[in-house]
Amino acid sequence: MFEQLGLIGCGLMGGSFALALRRAGLVKRVVGYSKSPSTTEHARQMGVIDVDAPSALLAVSGADIVLIAVPVAASEATFKSIKHIVTPNMLIMDVGSTKCDVVEAAARGLREQVGAFVPTHPIAGKELAGVDNADADLYSGKQVILTPTDLTLPSHTQRAIAVWNALGCKVVQMAPESHDAAFAAVSHLPHMLAFTLMNSMAGQPNGQTYMELAGPGFRDFTRIAASDPKVWRDILLANRAELLIQSQNFRDQLERFEAAMRTADLQTLEVLITQASATRANWRMTQLP
Amino acid sequence: MFEQLGLIGCGLMGGSFALALRRAGLVKRVVGYSKSPSTTEHARQMGVIDVDAPSALLAVSGADIVLIAVPVAASEATFKSIKHIVTPNMLIMDVGSTKCDVVEAAARGLREQVGAFVPTHPIAGKELAGVDNADADLYSGKQVILTPTDLTLPSHTQRAIAVWNALGCKVVQMAPESHDAAFAAVSHLPHMLAFTLMNSMAGQPNGQTYMELAGPGFRDFTRIAASDPKVWRDILLANRAELLIQSQNFRDQLERFEAAMRTADLQTLEVLITQASATRANWRMTQLP
Repeated sequence: MFEQLGLIGCGLMGGSFALALRRAGLVKRVVGYSKSPSTTEHARQMGVIDVDAPSALLAVSGADIVLIAVPVAASEATFKSIKHIVTPNMLIMDVGSTKCDVVEAAARGLREQVGAFVPTHPIAGKELAGVDNADADLYSGKQVILTPTDLTLPSHTQRAIAVWNALGCKVVQMAPESHDAAFAAVSHLPHMLAFTLMNSMAGQPNGQTYMELAGPGFRDFTRIAASDPKVWRDILLANRAELLIQSQNFRDQLERFEAAMRTADLQTLEVLITQASATRANWRMTQLP
Repeated sequence: MFEQLGLIGCGLMGGSFALALRRAGLVKRVVGYSKSPSTTEHARQMGVIDVDAPSALLAVSGADIVLIAVPVAASEATFKSIKHIVTPNMLIMDVGSTKCDVVEAAARGLREQVGAFVPTHPIAGKELAGVDNADADLYSGKQVILTPTDLTLPSHTQRAIAVWNALGCKVVQMAPESHDAAFAAVSHLPHMLAFTLMNSMAGQPNGQTYMELAGPGFRDFTRIAASDPKVWRDILLANRAELLIQSQNFRDQLERFEAAMRTADLQTLEVLITQASATRANWRMTQLP
């Protein structure tokens, strides 16, 4: 049981964590801060946070658990702004979709206090950003990746595991580099492809007319394209080295389809689709019941 | 009200049509044929069809409505096999995802009887093929595209509209060429991209490990990759001219993302994602209540 959650970033991810932590009876009080005062006030009016703080520092003051839920590029400035009141007893986590950059930002921003920080990526989300879409169930049954480093206090990693387990999550630990390589492939690339498809539609004269005909396949394929631009701008940039590798892999595979179509190679097309279909049919999202 | 539906192809699309037509009280008897006798027999045991016919010809014999629900490359052979007993009173439709090739197949296969055929594409489906997944609700509220030509009997087009309206569908008419251009963009390209992503995952050493970490975004983005290989092999090939144009559009847009990442151009990345996100947020699938 924590006395006080200091929440920096009262959006979808942060707001959902506050709601989930409170529902689980794990926190007495939530003090929140967002860059935009109107967001913070709105979060308080919605009951997502109890107190709206005028700064990140004041949100963290007195907290024994801190969640940083800001676009990843804002991580370093956030760490710096709270460094002076971080204590070794405070458990600090984030929700960033990239981990190498956040680990580096924490080292630079928190310095000798970096041991309190457990780098965290909950594999959950919605294409609808903002505290209005916060949901106490967002994390239920989902996987949460922790990427502690040599500097992370092992006791804090254990406490982080306990918190996420209590919210009904499956916790996985790995190195930040492994995390970023994996998520370039299974998350950042699909987002970039979905963005690209929407721009390809918007960029052609009949695109709007075509989209009026689109059905459930298009709906599901493009759902993630509605994601928050600032959040995803930061993610694509932070993980660009791995993402460019995955994008090249993808182009190579796309070229195989195009070549088969150009030469009307029915057999190769069937082989390619059979492999894709079997791979997808055999995949199941790791999720707790 | 029809006396008898002749169903050629007792899979997901055909079986769902039979179930929907019967539930709407629009048909007295369903006679079905599938290339595989065991499929036909299974469809009869499931109650999707009343009688299993040993040939397409016998399934159509005595029918006043015929649905051809086979992979599009099998259309011409199917039309030829039933031509001799097609009468001008018979309403013949298909469910093919491409229309130019099916229209040509009908002209060659049905010859002077081609007026009875109304080229049809219901914008509905599932990634799970086969009669076991047939669903009387598959078409409810969905759009159905008709692409009648100068040869199509206008009275048959009107009857086709009435049938689909009775099943709760919104009917749209357009030229086969316009249909194929639109669906290359909003359906065939997304399928090819989803196939490509799965092959990109399967083709890298850590692909399986990465996929164990994948979450809801990956799940929805790749859902259509599990589609039936033979059906989609035919679609990609039949519409390859339009699809290669769309694939090139897509590559051009992808290159813009890659260039922005290579040069760490934060502003361009944000512009690109903002456009994509707004386009997707403004889109709603056309669907009846």
